[in-house]
Amino acid sequence: MADRSNGYVTGRARRERLLDAAIAAFGQSGFHTATLTEIARACGISRPGLLHHFDSKEALLTAVLERRDQIDGEAFTAAIARSTSPLQALVDITAENAKTPGLTELYAVLSAEATNPRHPAHEYFATLYGRLRANLTEALEVMRIAGELPAHLPADELASEIIALKDGLSLQALLLPGTIHPAAALATAIERLTGVAVRTTR
Amino acid sequence: MADRSNGYVTGRARRERLLDAAIAAFGQSGFHTATLTEIARACGISRPGLLHHFDSKEALLTAVLERRDQIDGEAFTAAIARSTSPLQALVDITAENAKTPGLTELYAVLSAEATNPRHPAHEYFATLYGRLRANLTEALEVMRIAGELPAHLPADELASEIIALKDGLSLQALLLPGTIHPAAALATAIERLTGVAVRTTR
Repeated sequence: MADRSNGYVTGRARRERLLDAAIAAFGQSGFHTATLTEIARACGISRPGLLHHFDSKEALLTAVLERRDQIDGEAFTAAIARSTSPLQALVDITAENAKTPGLTELYAVLSAEATNPRHPAHEYFATLYGRLRANLTEALEVMRIAGELPAHLPADELASEIIALKDGLSLQALLLPGTIHPAAALATAIERLTGVAVRTTR
Repeated sequence: MADRSNGYVTGRARRERLLDAAIAAFGQSGFHTATLTEIARACGISRPGLLHHFDSKEALLTAVLERRDQIDGEAFTAAIARSTSPLQALVDITAENAKTPGLTELYAVLSAEATNPRHPAHEYFATLYGRLRANLTEALEVMRIAGELPAHLPADELASEIIALKDGLSLQALLLPGTIHPAAALATAIERLTGVAVRTTR
């Protein structure tokens, strides 16, 4: 029993280590260049050992993206649980993401690579951005109806602008570290665009 | 004389074709993955033939980036010649860039990859973004002194926000084509942020 339990724990721990190594490798040189062999080697196992956990590079990429979705989802749920606005939740997620620059860099590289319809993550990112924009538009409409957003502001345009600011300010923070705090800059920009106050917890 | 002149023309034309092929290859799969062999083959020449024009992959990347600088520089000069504002010039450049999605995709991929300090284009992009932000900040200060921008708006924060909007809206236009026109969306966002009217010529 003990052995099987340990085996399970070791298997899970190794899977987590492989995901960390994949995030680092994909983030450094993009999905196409990183090799399964180098990711396996970084975890002290062989390529066939890695393929025991993830049966292809695409499966590993999917697992990496799902982990990020989970992290963002938890941050969003936590923000909603604190009964703050969706705009506050977005700023909180940006602050959380700034703590894992490797993952943020990976997302920046992959979302750009994935603009190519033949990229294996194209569907993922097209769907993600479509959903993000639709959800944020809806949340802003709800705020407007509740009188929390000026009536003349178009929710759909604002949603695109806020997502663009999140992406663009995060890129500047990665390229010119120390010159900009992405969550604080996003909070300021959102307030300037919408008139809605958003806090930054660093 | 005629032969030498033709040789020169052919050499220049081939160099241009190689740049086009490099833009396509780098944009599709990132700098690291694209090979000199495939770029040469796309132009109907050999790898050594390519190396006659560009002696390394890094040299080819530098030439691609310089070409884009030249295109953006010309668009900026044209906008200034029409004696419009620097904000108008940025929107005009975004409209120009939307006509070459391959180059825009390349820039999105490279700027994200280049957040890694070991990437060969890291210095280029860190310098470019630092300069862009400084120049735009200065241009906004000039507008403020001339009374063309509300006095309470901080030029440095606005500069970061406008650059972020340009990058982020262009990414959305590439990921979800047909749902957003990056130059028109940027013009609307700039007007919302600054109160300064900007035209979009599609």
